Amino acid sequence: MPYIKLTEELPGIAALLKDYPTTAKPLLELAQVLLRGESTLSEGERELIAAYVSGKNKCQYCQYTHGATAKHLLDVDYDFIDRVKNDEADDELSPKMNSLLNIAGKVQINGQEVSQSDISDARKHGVTDKELHDTVLIAATFCLFNRYVDGLSTTTPKDDSVYDHRGAILAEKGYGWQTDV
Amino acid sequence: MPYIKLTEELPGIAALLKDYPTTAKPLLELAQVLLRGESTLSEGERELIAAYVSGKNKCQYCQYTHGATAKHLLDVDYDFIDRVKNDEADDELSPKMNSLLNIAGKVQINGQEVSQSDISDARKHGVTDKELHDTVLIAATFCLFNRYVDGLSTTTPKDDSVYDHRGAILAEKGYGWQTDV
Repeated sequence: MPYIKLTEELPGIAALLKDYPTTAKPLLELAQVLLRGESTLSEGERELIAAYVSGKNKCQYCQYTHGATAKHLLDVDYDFIDRVKNDEADDELSPKMNSLLNIAGKVQINGQEVSQSDISDARKHGVTDKELHDTVLIAATFCLFNRYVDGLSTTTPKDDSVYDHRGAILAEKGYGWQTDV
Repeated sequence: MPYIKLTEELPGIAALLKDYPTTAKPLLELAQVLLRGESTLSEGERELIAAYVSGKNKCQYCQYTHGATAKHLLDVDYDFIDRVKNDEADDELSPKMNSLLNIAGKVQINGQEVSQSDISDARKHGVTDKELHDTVLIAATFCLFNRYVDGLSTTTPKDDSVYDHRGAILAEKGYGWQTDV
């Protein structure tokens, strides 16, 4: 049960975005630029980082929504998404992707956890400045979204098919302001 | 020393906003709406929440910048800002402000830390839905900014006067896209 009155019974962040449009606009624009804008990381890889961080923050709504979005974009199964979130997929991921998830996990704890050796490891695997920037900012952004969703106790659907459906829409349409996120 | 190459030696988030304008635009718009938009919380109270959360995240750049901005807006001294950040100013703050800082501190740890009893306490002191929403989102937003600034190891000025100067500018001009943040 949400801590504040929301006009519609929408799941997770959707009810907040609908009722608070002046903050929804930059939040959705940030998500769209980071997760769908120009990048040498694929949209699926970026959604995987989002799901990974949301898993570490134990945000049910965000980890299942973005896990589903990554699943659709990467054409993998949900067991793989779960293994990634549980740090059990190192040998199924590229060394580059492992180095980025390592950095995202440090950011989830606190920005100061990211060390020069984490960065050097990523550089060794060809990670660029823009990829480092975007990985840190995606991880930081989901530390925001996870807290916004959980701090106001928004509704968390229990039915897996809700997330699969939302993930399919987000994979196809992204986070445009008109989209029902 | 920043982990990525930045074109200008600007302190904290400023160098990131300059070099990554597509994400800077929504980030600055979010800050402007949340910290300067219409609200029954004063601009100084909102900056105090930002400084408080940044202090808990131990982000030097953000806590001193927003502490200075709060100082200028609230017309208080730096000792008071330090006492607030250290949870030593309860008897100098209104019960309402104490209840909002309590919620912001919970959000800093994790959104799920916010309990119904934290919310009921705030309600007792007249806190509205919009004030609850904005407090949670300000706290969540600074969990983003703090991680962005520290996760990329941006430059932290050592001279207090740098923060006082930036705080005076932010107090007067806010976070418009044209502003040098």
